[in-house]
Amino acid sequence: MKKYNVAVVGAGAVGVEMLRVLRQRNFPVGKLKVLARSNRDITVDGQVYHVEPITPQSFDGMQIALFAGTEGEKGAAVTYSEEAVKRGCIVIDNGADFRMEKDVPLVVPEVNGKDVKQAKKGRGIIANPNCSTIQMVVALAPIHKMSKIKRVIVSTYQAASGAGSKAVDELFSQTKGVLEGQPARPEALSKRIAFNVFPHIGSFAENDFTSEEWKLILETQKIMNDKKILVSSTTVRVPVKVGHSESVYLETTKALDIKKVKAVLAKAPGIIVIDDLKTSSYPMPIDCEGKDEVFIGRIRKDPHNPKGIWLWVVADNLRKGAASNAVQIAEELVKQALV
Amino acid sequence: MKKYNVAVVGAGAVGVEMLRVLRQRNFPVGKLKVLARSNRDITVDGQVYHVEPITPQSFDGMQIALFAGTEGEKGAAVTYSEEAVKRGCIVIDNGADFRMEKDVPLVVPEVNGKDVKQAKKGRGIIANPNCSTIQMVVALAPIHKMSKIKRVIVSTYQAASGAGSKAVDELFSQTKGVLEGQPARPEALSKRIAFNVFPHIGSFAENDFTSEEWKLILETQKIMNDKKILVSSTTVRVPVKVGHSESVYLETTKALDIKKVKAVLAKAPGIIVIDDLKTSSYPMPIDCEGKDEVFIGRIRKDPHNPKGIWLWVVADNLRKGAASNAVQIAEELVKQALV
Repeated sequence: MKKYNVAVVGAGAVGVEMLRVLRQRNFPVGKLKVLARSNRDITVDGQVYHVEPITPQSFDGMQIALFAGTEGEKGAAVTYSEEAVKRGCIVIDNGADFRMEKDVPLVVPEVNGKDVKQAKKGRGIIANPNCSTIQMVVALAPIHKMSKIKRVIVSTYQAASGAGSKAVDELFSQTKGVLEGQPARPEALSKRIAFNVFPHIGSFAENDFTSEEWKLILETQKIMNDKKILVSSTTVRVPVKVGHSESVYLETTKALDIKKVKAVLAKAPGIIVIDDLKTSSYPMPIDCEGKDEVFIGRIRKDPHNPKGIWLWVVADNLRKGAASNAVQIAEELVKQALV
Repeated sequence: MKKYNVAVVGAGAVGVEMLRVLRQRNFPVGKLKVLARSNRDITVDGQVYHVEPITPQSFDGMQIALFAGTEGEKGAAVTYSEEAVKRGCIVIDNGADFRMEKDVPLVVPEVNGKDVKQAKKGRGIIANPNCSTIQMVVALAPIHKMSKIKRVIVSTYQAASGAGSKAVDELFSQTKGVLEGQPARPEALSKRIAFNVFPHIGSFAENDFTSEEWKLILETQKIMNDKKILVSSTTVRVPVKVGHSESVYLETTKALDIKKVKAVLAKAPGIIVIDDLKTSSYPMPIDCEGKDEVFIGRIRKDPHNPKGIWLWVVADNLRKGAASNAVQIAEELVKQALV
């Protein structure tokens, strides 16, 4: 079996998850490098990885470079992706810097896996979409094939881990503190997260939408290659460790039979339908942690509009929303013999 | 100043809040009775109240009966409201049993305060709407006056206290347990609430919507007296103690100027607008606890539809969502000299 030399850039929450996913999915890794700012060893699931300080030369002899990306600042891909490509790598970047560039494909393998080949014609970079977009488009794509989706109204319930591992630490330490009667002092997150929710993810941008809300709008159109899908969203942080949930209302061009929609979703790649009201079964973030699939429930017709459908969509934001999708893109490169 | 004899039925989370609100709002209470199943004393804000076992005769000489209602089972109003009315009371019922009855007005004073007079012509009962409906219609009504609202898509973020005080205890004890590595054992709530969210409030009903989701649809039409307002919703429990949040998308008949919408909401009765992105200001449940107003932020135009508007609406579900609205209905009765 052919093996591929892989560099993972970043050793934070997503970088660690990338190492875990490469192993769990048995990606055919030849030489593996973990690159970050400082020289150290990290242990993931009992396996010790040596972290090397990143330099342009680090990419010599590597074939795939997985950039973990960063939250809130420019990712390492801005500095190093060109160097990696120059040295023969295909870059898969989880950061937000290149996602909307014309010569960079934005890929969710279940939806537009074929687009990975554009990286070769372009600048050698494939962008991994934003976590909240990935799980939504996996849910939308099979329905879009049944009848074109024209409108999406989505409200999110996003876990602290979406803001990095310090935000997870803050969720737990702050919650413990509040239970003991101490005041909350937000640092990693913009507001108190313990026993609270707030509609603010990313930074405020055009039309008073946040950067996260714009990602859902623009990335969806790019991945699904359809500018007529008009997404609108409010994104909200909730006191959950891992697993983003989304309350998705959508309108198709034709009225669809809801049983058929359920059947199509249940058979679609990367989707697990959990939707049995008799047993109060629906997806929840606590059940999705560590999984690579997108979980869908509460599938139902709008009572007023025969073309309106509601979905409740949950996925592990560090896995399908980041690391697993990136590794699946690498798998797609292998499958299409592009690496 | 004229005073009124008031019976509060129920001594749970909402009943206690009714006693607190009557005092804080200086309602002109003459004789006060607290009625429940068992004989005991309760202390609210340092004030001791004697709880009497409820009988039909308890309502003799009372003028206003505030029923706290119950979650998940038939409220005491089913058994006792007729007896109370027969003895001269006007009943204000926080339970769900009578809300959709034709001869029972469903009232949010800021929206349809005038409707309280229908109770006299009807069966002497005024229904207090569901918590999630109350805060939403307070936000919708001023916009509806500017241009008729045709469509509402709402996803909720509902606090544990909406399921009663046992659910609040469970939120805190379960969270503490999970932090200490113990397994969660849901009892008061249908699923684990610690560091989790789930799209299930009330029971599953027609079209696979929950009873809570139907309340938002049907109660809104009744309170706003407009069957053309087509509400659709997904209702979700979140690990918050007090304060329901709602992500509301709405469409008006005409396109509105968003600055005018903000100005109208800021001046509307019972509303406080918190919407300053420069200082990351928006309403959050932790800031709304103990308040009677409805808090609105993230007011913005949809980027695709000039008639589409987003709102983020937060209120204390035990206060404006239950006890305060009920006491405001009593105030409306006094104002209109109906009692």
